[in-house]
Amino acid sequence: MKSADQKAGRSKTNPGNYFEDFFLGQEIIHAVPRTVTTGDVALYTGLTGSRFALPSADSLAQSIGLASSATGMAPVDDLLVFHLVFGRTVADISLNAIANLGYANGKFGVPVFPGDTLSARSAVIGLKENSNGESGVVYVHTTGRNQRQEVVLDYVRWVMVRKRDKASPAPETKVPNLPTSVALADYHLPAGLDLTRYDSTLIGQPHLWDDYAVGERIDHVDGMTLEESDHMTATRLYQNNAKVHFNQHSESKGRFGRRLIYGGHIISLARALSFNGLAPAFRILAINGGRHLNPSFAGDTIYAWSEVIERIALPGRSDIGALRLKTRAAKDRACADFPGATAPGPDIAGDQASSLVLELDYTVLMKRRH
Amino acid sequence: MKSADQKAGRSKTNPGNYFEDFFLGQEIIHAVPRTVTTGDVALYTGLTGSRFALPSADSLAQSIGLASSATGMAPVDDLLVFHLVFGRTVADISLNAIANLGYANGKFGVPVFPGDTLSARSAVIGLKENSNGESGVVYVHTTGRNQRQEVVLDYVRWVMVRKRDKASPAPETKVPNLPTSVALADYHLPAGLDLTRYDSTLIGQPHLWDDYAVGERIDHVDGMTLEESDHMTATRLYQNNAKVHFNQHSESKGRFGRRLIYGGHIISLARALSFNGLAPAFRILAINGGRHLNPSFAGDTIYAWSEVIERIALPGRSDIGALRLKTRAAKDRACADFPGATAPGPDIAGDQASSLVLELDYTVLMKRRH
Amino acid sequence: MKSADQKAGRSKTNPGNYFEDFFLGQEIIHAVPRTVTTGDVALYTGLTGSRFALPSADSLAQSIGLASSATGMAPVDDLLVFHLVFGRTVADISLNAIANLGYANGKFGVPVFPGDTLSARSAVIGLKENSNGESGVVYVHTTGRNQRQEVVLDYVRWVMVRKRDKASPAPETKVPNLPTSVALADYHLPAGLDLTRYDSTLIGQPHLWDDYAVGERIDHVDGMTLEESDHMTATRLYQNNAKVHFNQHSESKGRFGRRLIYGGHIISLARALSFNGLAPAFRILAINGGRHLNPSFAGDTIYAWSEVIERIALPGRSDIGALRLKTRAAKDRACADFPGATAPGPDIAGDQASSLVLELDYTVLMKRRH
Repeated sequence: MKSADQKAGRSKTNPGNYFEDFFLGQEIIHAVPRTVTTGDVALYTGLTGSRFALPSADSLAQSIGLASSATGMAPVDDLLVFHLVFGRTVADISLNAIANLGYANGKFGVPVFPGDTLSARSAVIGLKENSNGESGVVYVHTTGRNQRQEVVLDYVRWVMVRKRDKASPAPETKVPNLPTSVALADYHLPAGLDLTRYDSTLIGQPHLWDDYAVGERIDHVDGMTLEESDHMTATRLYQNNAKVHFNQHSESKGRFGRRLIYGGHIISLARALSFNGLAPAFRILAINGGRHLNPSFAGDTIYAWSEVIERIALPGRSDIGALRLKTRAAKDRACADFPGATAPGPDIAGDQASSLVLELDYTVLMKRRH
Repeated sequence: MKSADQKAGRSKTNPGNYFEDFFLGQEIIHAVPRTVTTGDVALYTGLTGSRFALPSADSLAQSIGLASSATGMAPVDDLLVFHLVFGRTVADISLNAIANLGYANGKFGVPVFPGDTLSARSAVIGLKENSNGESGVVYVHTTGRNQRQEVVLDYVRWVMVRKRDKASPAPETKVPNLPTSVALADYHLPAGLDLTRYDSTLIGQPHLWDDYAVGERIDHVDGMTLEESDHMTATRLYQNNAKVHFNQHSESKGRFGRRLIYGGHIISLARALSFNGLAPAFRILAINGGRHLNPSFAGDTIYAWSEVIERIALPGRSDIGALRLKTRAAKDRACADFPGATAPGPDIAGDQASSLVLELDYTVLMKRRH
Repeated sequence: MKSADQKAGRSKTNPGNYFEDFFLGQEIIHAVPRTVTTGDVALYTGLTGSRFALPSADSLAQSIGLASSATGMAPVDDLLVFHLVFGRTVADISLNAIANLGYANGKFGVPVFPGDTLSARSAVIGLKENSNGESGVVYVHTTGRNQRQEVVLDYVRWVMVRKRDKASPAPETKVPNLPTSVALADYHLPAGLDLTRYDSTLIGQPHLWDDYAVGERIDHVDGMTLEESDHMTATRLYQNNAKVHFNQHSESKGRFGRRLIYGGHIISLARALSFNGLAPAFRILAINGGRHLNPSFAGDTIYAWSEVIERIALPGRSDIGALRLKTRAAKDRACADFPGATAPGPDIAGDQASSLVLELDYTVLMKRRH
């Protein structure tokens, strides 16, 4: 006798996990490792317009000791690594997600070079059913590794996932203790980094770590308009298969009537725009936290601005320092429309608040003036 | 004295071949060989969203003996090979085509790796003028080879081509005998294939060849909406220069008022969607036949489902088996709208039939349970 | 006390140079070198549909002595080199440009291979304030070099740049003497070029240098429709960050109400279309001059045609010759609509003139019949 699923032709189809399918301590090995290539790098540049120097020029990577010792190639963009690791996890974690709620404790590990193959695993570290009994929040700790099993990135994210059956019992609630920022001791400083031959002119901006002041606000000025083809190509490149990004036929009947843009694409655009003012931030050390405040759609124009939250000296290093930043992105509304605002709240209200699409708290590496 | 063509500035322009230009036994060497790179692979992933494991991960290709012995790289997607070989032939075969009528006896040969250079030749194996005297059907046998002259793919396709002059005499009719499926003896099993270290988890699905039953139907569930930029970029990547895909200015006055999408792009999307249910089909052995049932346009959302037609044991191999599949794609209409339908005909009628865009009969390779 | 710029969050943002910021003899080292990869090559093919044989096939490049001696790879498209060098200069030269007025004396140097890293410098060689006191013309001589400091391209361009302050005094006027065409002695013939094994069939067209007559006009026949996603992806790939190409939110209030397409993308499309009739033009030697006659926008369909201006024998070379061409491109209007026209002027008027978007005077290399 055939099951309903078999009759519907779905006995071999991945329906995605529902809230009931997750349990504390669960370990998930995600399918389909991914070799990163210069093709990915070119497409990432073409889709985001990023001009950060390190992934752009092998010669520059070589000059600061960060090129691959095997090939001489520059490491790929940190956020490309993020999206490729994240992309592995979607089919298991967020196919039935209602919302991607947040990120915490994201730490970039060894640099990734073209030719490396990335794979990902996740551990379920928290579960909390919602009071309506229709969904719950799943906390996962995801680790991305290269082909030598070195960690390239690990982070926590939490997503709201639909229950298959409202009647199924709630699991024991466990909300993990998450740091509001990555601990200093957890920063991975790339081996071999040597800034003796660092060239401000080629990096694109004269400022060094010392020149950024806590509380300083940087308007990245430029704007980038979103196109369906661009965000879908980016998201497909990462092999992120969440349906809401691709299917206008079903989304036309959905909540927004349109395809939703992968939040990670907005993160990449905000980072790419931030080159104008943050060009010396050549490497991302950590993602302390992040929230997608509103959805973005094709036709929206993304603007970004950043605030310096903290200037962090690194023990034993007088050549480099870390800068904790809060970068915000808004749609169809430039930085100048948010005067003095440092956080959404009483000072960002009404249509200002509905224009905000991203708040990303992260830490970057910069050369320090000796 | 200048000819009319010279006056019009067309004496050096390729007008494409008309039906009268083809003759039985004609051998055509197609222009412009093409080196395949990891850039093509990345763009193919970005435009189709394919998640099949073999072209995705060098490590996985290495683990099953299919990586390049020279570079360690994974073979590129079988359909990328198909499109690149097909793309070579367009300027000679189908520039004046009214319709691409069908494919038969398509056999994939040695795997193609980044760095290989593909070239193509075609032989005219059949001709049949249409009764209206305005066009005819040309059958070509196309062979794609790598830089070592090893066959990477060969197939037959037939196209309806316009006559230059209705008055020119019809050629002798010759319709080639074409097999309805590729013969078992013609399958090319990649050398070195060793599934001892095959990992179902990384491949993305636990099922093996033994788990698929003849008659079984698999709904691939997801849908992908077509964009002008995506299909044009894919088709340009293959250097397929058929005008109908690119020129809105002329197509706006044409039969559909819009740019037509290259049928091969639909094949790629159907295959990419089929990962959800057919992830273990890591290699295409053969294209037995295929038909584009209706045109697709930007804005359409493509869905796909597959039926298992035949389970083929391979002589002397207990580790692998072949599966013959029929994959169908429809636009703006999901699999569930075609209950029980196994072929267009009495059971698929009316707007159901007009929604069908592709029927592809092909054979894939899968690991077999020992 | 904070400056107005600091208050506005713009103290670290590059505002671009204004007319007052340039001075004669100024040397500008442009930021962010760029490693060219096969990823760039694939994306360039995907976005332009170019079918020229040399960048398409390593085997063909090897057969005529133009492959990299280190990797065996083909050189990348000459215009990809142009765009990548040009892209370096935008943030310094043309961020506040009103119009890109022209190019002159562009000479391609040593071929660029995947893996090469390009950087660019510009010298200010001319300045002329406009009579309205609101802007001026800046002439720069830009030189692109590879990682061995070999020149890959140098050219002069002039742009109209806004003044920051109308009241600031005009600089001394200096308009450089620019040649109307690159001098024969300045052509760089690629070392190693050997056409003994040149294969017309694989190149895509039987004609040789001798077959092109001065005054001959070649209609490239095909048309390519522009999409927002395509031109933005191309322009981002080159890391050209001129705002007018990307920001619909601000451009909707601007002069045209829409995003303007980077003129270089039109050059690339015209060259790609010119394969149909000029396939043997396997290498560009020089850009003698060029003008963007009207802006292009998404939705426009680009057509192109060429006129042979001069047939140039190369001293001491009986195997190759140079051909000076004028290629024109129009939008939504095919070559046939411009009968006999060889230059915009009395013979191209009214809506014909407003359809013209490009006039490019350049010199190509072709095999000569011995």
